[in-house]
Amino acid sequence: MRIDIISVVPDLLKSPFEASILKRAIEKKLVEVHLHNLRDYVNDNYKQIDDYQFGGGAGMVMMIEPIDKCISDLKAQRAYDEVIYMTPDGETLTQKIANQISLQGNIIILCGHYKGVDQRVRDHFITREISVGDFVLSGGELGAAILCDAVIRLIPGVLGNETSALTDSFQDDLLAPPIYTRPAEYKGWKVPEILTSGNFPKIETWREEQAYQRTLEKRPDLLKD
Amino acid sequence: MRIDIISVVPDLLKSPFEASILKRAIEKKLVEVHLHNLRDYVNDNYKQIDDYQFGGGAGMVMMIEPIDKCISDLKAQRAYDEVIYMTPDGETLTQKIANQISLQGNIIILCGHYKGVDQRVRDHFITREISVGDFVLSGGELGAAILCDAVIRLIPGVLGNETSALTDSFQDDLLAPPIYTRPAEYKGWKVPEILTSGNFPKIETWREEQAYQRTLEKRPDLLKD
Repeated sequence: MRIDIISVVPDLLKSPFEASILKRAIEKKLVEVHLHNLRDYVNDNYKQIDDYQFGGGAGMVMMIEPIDKCISDLKAQRAYDEVIYMTPDGETLTQKIANQISLQGNIIILCGHYKGVDQRVRDHFITREISVGDFVLSGGELGAAILCDAVIRLIPGVLGNETSALTDSFQDDLLAPPIYTRPAEYKGWKVPEILTSGNFPKIETWREEQAYQRTLEKRPDLLKD
Repeated sequence: MRIDIISVVPDLLKSPFEASILKRAIEKKLVEVHLHNLRDYVNDNYKQIDDYQFGGGAGMVMMIEPIDKCISDLKAQRAYDEVIYMTPDGETLTQKIANQISLQGNIIILCGHYKGVDQRVRDHFITREISVGDFVLSGGELGAAILCDAVIRLIPGVLGNETSALTDSFQDDLLAPPIYTRPAEYKGWKVPEILTSGNFPKIETWREEQAYQRTLEKRPDLLKD
């Protein structure tokens, strides 16, 4: 899988890809992530990539031309399955969408910044709009990092068996059950006895019940489908 | 406002706070963000912060003792309004929650990693559990960055008037209307005439209609409340 991320502040995205699981996935060549600075696609000396809104109003708008140039340049080199725009009014990212995207080959992720991009970019170049949630961020960069993390960890070989994604929350529409590790007692707080019983079938049943109970209490909406 | 972030991979969080709006907010001293490496709170030479799950199963669990030490150390220095744990089974982050948290003084954000933290940490130290969405990430670090971004940009003085948060999506339960900037025509694609008319009351009405229309099409759920 190859991911090209287009941003006006690509430096913001450096450290998330230089640590932990994303770093290892890149080192193992299971995924390529390329950061592109939108200012490299502007000819004038001011490197202007944004301008005032037509019709007035607060906030700058990212111009169509540099984005067109950058996307066209990438598309001239290889085919892309998807050109994704990170925006708070896109479809809300879910584990299902992450699963879908993890099966794709090459994708472009465009990060909005300031007030967002000229609507014509969305109308003519974008194939999918994704939001990470119902809140507003300074830009799409952190959303892009979230999307990459959610997607990349699903690529076969990225997680070892010991950190299998299969028992994570949402993979089966249930939240994960509570987990405990040593010491068995800390400041008088004990782990549930069942977990130290060695009775694995019973432990499995307990975990399923806990997962269901936790989902019922915290997120009954997940049980409705 | 002061935010203390506890993580096993604090380096992952470096660049988001060294760019763009978050960087400027820190420079203007409108917010302090401190990253804490959990391994600094372990005495043994191996700097072990995780261990196997009681009852078996894939994935490592973050141990209670280093987290207790780190949180206790911070609390000994000042009072905290909230000790937040980033976890996919927490309450889902919304603009309303970001607004609430932006009014607080000092907060701690604990990032889960691997399979998550020992349940006793959640039972005894955490005052609020927040999720950025229904998907699974490698750790809570990117969620913490998202939460910080959503919150910090709401602190008075962080955004100038020119980038006012008031017209963003969600602040009025509507998605933002489409935006356009120069050129007025690009490859034959024109901006809507109304926006270049100079008739500002009409432009305002058009924007309200567009915002409503877009919300109705993409996110009718937002209109129900």
